[in-house]
Amino acid sequence: MTISQRYQLSLTLLTDMYQLTMAQGYWKKGLAEQEAVFHLYFRKNPFKGGYTVCAGLADALDLLQNFKFTEGDLTYLKALTGSQGQPLFEEGFLQHLRDLTFTCDVDAIPEGTVVFPNEPLLRIKGPILQCQLLETPLLTILNFQTLVATKAARVVEAAQGDPVLEFGMRRAQGPDGALSAARAAFIGGVAATSNVLAGQLFNIPVKGTHAHSWVMSFEEEQESFAAYAEVFPHDSVFLVDTYHTLEGIQKAIEVAREMRKNGAELKGIRLDSGDLAYLSIEGRRMLDEAGFSQVAILASNDLDEYLIESLKLQGAKIDTWGIGTKLVTAYDQPALGGVYKLAALRQPNGEWEYKVKLSEQLAKISTPGILQVRRFSKEGALVGDMIYSEPLGISPAVTMVHPNDPTQRKNFTQECVHEDLLVPVFKAGEQVYTSPDLRAIQQRTKEQLQLLHGTYRRFLNPHLYKVGLEEQLHEKKLALIVQLRTTAQTKGA
Amino acid sequence: MTISQRYQLSLTLLTDMYQLTMAQGYWKKGLAEQEAVFHLYFRKNPFKGGYTVCAGLADALDLLQNFKFTEGDLTYLKALTGSQGQPLFEEGFLQHLRDLTFTCDVDAIPEGTVVFPNEPLLRIKGPILQCQLLETPLLTILNFQTLVATKAARVVEAAQGDPVLEFGMRRAQGPDGALSAARAAFIGGVAATSNVLAGQLFNIPVKGTHAHSWVMSFEEEQESFAAYAEVFPHDSVFLVDTYHTLEGIQKAIEVAREMRKNGAELKGIRLDSGDLAYLSIEGRRMLDEAGFSQVAILASNDLDEYLIESLKLQGAKIDTWGIGTKLVTAYDQPALGGVYKLAALRQPNGEWEYKVKLSEQLAKISTPGILQVRRFSKEGALVGDMIYSEPLGISPAVTMVHPNDPTQRKNFTQECVHEDLLVPVFKAGEQVYTSPDLRAIQQRTKEQLQLLHGTYRRFLNPHLYKVGLEEQLHEKKLALIVQLRTTAQTKGA
Repeated sequence: MTISQRYQLSLTLLTDMYQLTMAQGYWKKGLAEQEAVFHLYFRKNPFKGGYTVCAGLADALDLLQNFKFTEGDLTYLKALTGSQGQPLFEEGFLQHLRDLTFTCDVDAIPEGTVVFPNEPLLRIKGPILQCQLLETPLLTILNFQTLVATKAARVVEAAQGDPVLEFGMRRAQGPDGALSAARAAFIGGVAATSNVLAGQLFNIPVKGTHAHSWVMSFEEEQESFAAYAEVFPHDSVFLVDTYHTLEGIQKAIEVAREMRKNGAELKGIRLDSGDLAYLSIEGRRMLDEAGFSQVAILASNDLDEYLIESLKLQGAKIDTWGIGTKLVTAYDQPALGGVYKLAALRQPNGEWEYKVKLSEQLAKISTPGILQVRRFSKEGALVGDMIYSEPLGISPAVTMVHPNDPTQRKNFTQECVHEDLLVPVFKAGEQVYTSPDLRAIQQRTKEQLQLLHGTYRRFLNPHLYKVGLEEQLHEKKLALIVQLRTTAQTKGA
Repeated sequence: MTISQRYQLSLTLLTDMYQLTMAQGYWKKGLAEQEAVFHLYFRKNPFKGGYTVCAGLADALDLLQNFKFTEGDLTYLKALTGSQGQPLFEEGFLQHLRDLTFTCDVDAIPEGTVVFPNEPLLRIKGPILQCQLLETPLLTILNFQTLVATKAARVVEAAQGDPVLEFGMRRAQGPDGALSAARAAFIGGVAATSNVLAGQLFNIPVKGTHAHSWVMSFEEEQESFAAYAEVFPHDSVFLVDTYHTLEGIQKAIEVAREMRKNGAELKGIRLDSGDLAYLSIEGRRMLDEAGFSQVAILASNDLDEYLIESLKLQGAKIDTWGIGTKLVTAYDQPALGGVYKLAALRQPNGEWEYKVKLSEQLAKISTPGILQVRRFSKEGALVGDMIYSEPLGISPAVTMVHPNDPTQRKNFTQECVHEDLLVPVFKAGEQVYTSPDLRAIQQRTKEQLQLLHGTYRRFLNPHLYKVGLEEQLHEKKLALIVQLRTTAQTKGA
């Protein structure tokens, strides 16, 4: 279920106020229909990592598909006043919004694709007024889901094939924070969620057994396990740390013996506190010695990729990982700094004028053009991504330049195969792309990560994947920057 | 607009799977109607701070008010299967859910109240099956809004009376993350949001002017300012850092001169990059020298309470603060670790049995009872909060014991006035409390913070506000812990 289906209100006002004031500005100056190109991209991989997994496109497309101002939206805008008590928006502008339909071309990188800094995840081409209004919601959706899908991929990587379960709803940033996180975490590779509504809406497997309160609501811990086993003979995972963990494991074993007499097998035990390395090793030993080597050990308690890696190194005997807070909030970096920048503007003569946003830091200067990303691979491994501008094309040398260090260049040889990452998703306001099923997106993530050498996937000081600007684009960008700076200096003198 | 009004789907499945499996367990064991008491509380103030501002109650109440399984919910649950492919939920249980109506008593601390670790923000008393199902959504809503309201209060504190604007939507954790954050930030004291939908839904003032793209879409920066001023003569704030900030300020001044000729005044300029201390001081000087001392300086760019404090110390001339990512994601601690613990269970004989969850750390052992928080004040300042159990009452000595160090005690004298913080919000499933208007809640936050001495409000090593357990409750808790540990040891030996 997509985002506009979840809400019973128009999401067209889900944008920043300045998008609307600028929109009135463009309308008033007769510029509303001026054709523009904007790109949505981020500047750094999250979590000091070597890659990013993009996600959220299905929700973004849904938002574009339903872009329409309702009378309720317009009534609200009409009532807004400026500092003199005057209406902020003019009738003519509100009528323009009433008549507005989405007419842009949109190209995007499919969800589950491995992406890198400075690559446009989405490109929108159309009337500047429309492009502008859509900036904020597109960023909100793609920033967050991309962030969580990436975190999930890292956690799954650390788990080395063990199932990872997403348990974070209670600590998520609001109900929709939980739902969006569950969707994105699944794209990143988790096996299931504890969030039942997410399970229903997105057709994700749901998992969960019992809490401490179940144990506490019985006089004896063992009695609580036996009661649970009676209700779920084939699906019981006992939480063993309510009072004393090793004691709890012993009681779980007693109940497992009773279950076996009745032809049922305990599925697992769960550790949710204490020293997970020690307790899982001891627990494994106790279970094995009692003849319950099939009983899995599930661990949770503020885990993330670093703790999983550490527990694995310590020889912890954990089979399934329950990850909550650290995954659904992307705790160590709770926002992806995605931006949305104007890159070209059609002039009255039909020519595209390239646009850059200056900054004192070279890395923060936007790239002009109508961009596409060409990805080169060799023998099933990714070797580099070239950002090029479609009208400029690619020079015969197939050379790219490091975005922040023009002395570094790379050529792609004939042996490389290539693919362009951005695919058309809207043409003239008509959706031309159908989002794959969520499982297919999860599968894509898995395949994409396999194309990436392990050195890019490690957590500490990952190898830097090569992304550059096609040399003509580089030259064009450089010329524009110099020209803008020269103008500023001349005028400033 | 409350949360269930925002969504067009039943939010009853917005819970963790284990709540439903436990619910079937309680039902199957004939325990579904057993009366229980759960408390929702957190263990540490967020951001290493000295206080917390509670928020989210209106959304939580709305969720309880609309607690009802729909046929769609039940159809989904019916289709879920266990590891043997068998249906996970029985027909009789699903019928029980179909017939279920909310019948609990709920007491809660009103939004905008200053609260401290271990104090129940919400207490729910009723059939254990109902209490359990509601755990996850109550935590999701109250954890996040409380976190953001607290962060906002800190930012507002740092701004020392300057208006703070919430600008974070694009970096929020999903659309509802942005909406919930806007609501909570307003409770914490921000003056306005950039999120238009939040403005509409919650009746929060909305603010915003223009982006870099507006400037870039004109040939000249000055032309872009003039165009904006033409459209919004009385509400223009120019973003001056698209190319070169001091140049941009000079152009803003030129346009402000033209505006003045036409009887309009520039409202402000906005700095969004670079050294905000230097640029604001220079900008202020330039504006003042040009006769524009009324023009405000608005600053943004990854600001939080620490940067505001630092900028103030440096003498930055900033009048209005735009806070985005760091506020809406509560960046330095993106989750409040709120928990929801069983504290008492009614026995067949009608007596309440007190319940604790053990832990190796004393601070993580839950407090049993049917808890209330009594807050003592003296001469308009808060002096301490006593957590007591209603059935036990308060001993004549009015003594409380430090929750983690029983050697520390505090008596409250006759000079103190007191108030009980938890108020009834539902009685036997009927809502008996009407949430105040959001502005009234914001006002409450402001008043509450004024009751708190500055030493509790500072960011670095704040003074620890005294919260203790009433002495009879302390004794009861101690006895229970010792009893449980003794039982464990005896059996473990």
